[in-house]
Amino acid sequence: MLQPPPAEPGAPEAEIDTPALILDLDAFEANLDRMAALLAPTGTKLRAHAKTHKSPVIARLQMARGAIGQCVQKVAEAEVLAWGGIPDILVSNEVVGARKLARLAALAGIAKVAVCADDAPQIDAIAAAAEAAGVRLPVLVEIDTGAGRCGVAPGPDAVALARRIAASKHLIFGGLQAYHGSAQHKRTPAERQALIAGAAEGARRTVEQLRQQGLDCPIVGGGGTGSFEFEAGSGVFTEIQAGSYAFMDADYARNLDAAGQPVSTFRHALFVLATVMSAPRPGVAVLDAGHKAVAVDSGLPVVWQRPELRYVSASDEHGKLEAGSETAAPKLGEKLRLVPGHCDPTVDRYDWYVGVRGGRVACLWPVAARGAMA
Amino acid sequence: MLQPPPAEPGAPEAEIDTPALILDLDAFEANLDRMAALLAPTGTKLRAHAKTHKSPVIARLQMARGAIGQCVQKVAEAEVLAWGGIPDILVSNEVVGARKLARLAALAGIAKVAVCADDAPQIDAIAAAAEAAGVRLPVLVEIDTGAGRCGVAPGPDAVALARRIAASKHLIFGGLQAYHGSAQHKRTPAERQALIAGAAEGARRTVEQLRQQGLDCPIVGGGGTGSFEFEAGSGVFTEIQAGSYAFMDADYARNLDAAGQPVSTFRHALFVLATVMSAPRPGVAVLDAGHKAVAVDSGLPVVWQRPELRYVSASDEHGKLEAGSETAAPKLGEKLRLVPGHCDPTVDRYDWYVGVRGGRVACLWPVAARGAMA
Repeated sequence: MLQPPPAEPGAPEAEIDTPALILDLDAFEANLDRMAALLAPTGTKLRAHAKTHKSPVIARLQMARGAIGQCVQKVAEAEVLAWGGIPDILVSNEVVGARKLARLAALAGIAKVAVCADDAPQIDAIAAAAEAAGVRLPVLVEIDTGAGRCGVAPGPDAVALARRIAASKHLIFGGLQAYHGSAQHKRTPAERQALIAGAAEGARRTVEQLRQQGLDCPIVGGGGTGSFEFEAGSGVFTEIQAGSYAFMDADYARNLDAAGQPVSTFRHALFVLATVMSAPRPGVAVLDAGHKAVAVDSGLPVVWQRPELRYVSASDEHGKLEAGSETAAPKLGEKLRLVPGHCDPTVDRYDWYVGVRGGRVACLWPVAARGAMA
Repeated sequence: MLQPPPAEPGAPEAEIDTPALILDLDAFEANLDRMAALLAPTGTKLRAHAKTHKSPVIARLQMARGAIGQCVQKVAEAEVLAWGGIPDILVSNEVVGARKLARLAALAGIAKVAVCADDAPQIDAIAAAAEAAGVRLPVLVEIDTGAGRCGVAPGPDAVALARRIAASKHLIFGGLQAYHGSAQHKRTPAERQALIAGAAEGARRTVEQLRQQGLDCPIVGGGGTGSFEFEAGSGVFTEIQAGSYAFMDADYARNLDAAGQPVSTFRHALFVLATVMSAPRPGVAVLDAGHKAVAVDSGLPVVWQRPELRYVSASDEHGKLEAGSETAAPKLGEKLRLVPGHCDPTVDRYDWYVGVRGGRVACLWPVAARGAMA
């Protein structure tokens, strides 16, 4: 069953039941505006990643500011977006299995849906699903730009797959998927820039080889919140796939800018609101938000604007805080905002965004694709 | 929205859509039987922890084997169990906030519900909620048995809170909550035994001091899957609160027995079924199950009965496998069972259990309290 919303519009933030996923709308909108402003002069388009937000509402706000569509990682996410009215969706990932491919092809009646492949038999399976549904599906070839996850090597291997796609009357060659995941959290801009230069070189070489074979490459997609400025400036990438920029988590905020300072391009907009549920000893407080309320895979959460407090350990339903001094410890019942270490899997734990502005609940939006893993 | 079930009853396991949470019913039932058999001669009762399973169906199966009730950590979990027909529920945790306490008191009309406290004003708040609802609520005093999370010190501090509870005409002193969380995963039985000996000593001393004040202590509750045999043998604990025993995760399986071997009391019954979605290089396979499909807070998942395969890294929607040899790598489309590092937060990511027996889907059970954090 779904969980009830933790507050109603109009309620003061202090009355939101916890743990709750709250979205500071001013910061969130500033982030959307900032990304649009940064990309506008580059000519590179934004295809924001819905794996982060899992919400057709947020997707539409991104598209109202110029995003040309959305990325997703899963067919189930594509379904939620398509059913929610999003017209242009790229599954920036491989999709394996006849059942999933049939579901993907079935969406093509209500939205433009594209998918990635890195394997010849997989291309044939996508073609079979498209044929069965009576549609033509755009397929992008994923190249491994250095992250060592999915994807074929740039160059001839990628060209061979592109030719196979283009040769199918049920498919359209959609371009190259060239995301470099492990570049995103390299701490210095020099490291990120060097890795993306390598990714861009592989993509550029592949595009040239495709052209020599008479294949146009409509999309070269990649780039995340940590690296998008380098992809956008490369002259090769046509689409940026950033997602976290809308929310900013604690781990992205550990990236450094050229001056060696934490990056300040985007503001923290997403928080887990938590309550002190026990204050058992001086200088210690226990929050009602642990592993089930906030993802810890990229580090523990950070207490927002309370540097004297440290979230030192999580258990399933508890988060232990230590204060710099006994007097600094929060009181029983006090509510605190936590900046999650990692926004994407944190969002996926909740049924509702609670949008706040000026200290009050301004809106409730469902995390419509929560748990959409298949 | 809820996600659709990943299979229908009767389907072969190989047709279950992935990622899926699957429950090997033979192993699961063996675990329930084993716990009942281990506790029967001790006289200590099982109040199994529903924070692990989040399912009234599983709760009933535990109670059919002698469990006297269920523990939960959250009011929202208590609601799901009470609505699902579970008659005796202990919130083995503090509950803070008038809204939550009103919801808890409202449940007392359909189930016996008890809650913990570790703070005098909190007891008054629970009494106020009980009074407003016209009910009497049993309240247990949580003592810190050494884990350093919630709870007052054993002895006089605990007795003072018990007296405050007993003095309220809206409350009933329910006993002591004496769970030692950090003992559960100490690897040697000697370490676990020593910590629980300390916990039992604190509980025993507190029970004696309560008796001297004329207060009977109906429940002394604690014990998890890692330590319950020590609590059950202590002569002090009346109720065991184990949850993970029903499923067994990879982290509990790293605990050792007296012979220095991995504990074999319970069998792995809970798995994440995943599909190879990319096989990009020799010896490497990428699964469709990452951070959003399996909790990594207690270590990466382990590939079930395939020691030649190692799950080496997770990203949000991907899990990278390395094989001991190129020929050992699984093929594109192959499905593998993963043993989660930590079962509780893994279960909380899914809407459905897919029960399997004899290679087929035998049942679908909802993870009814998924996301029930409030």
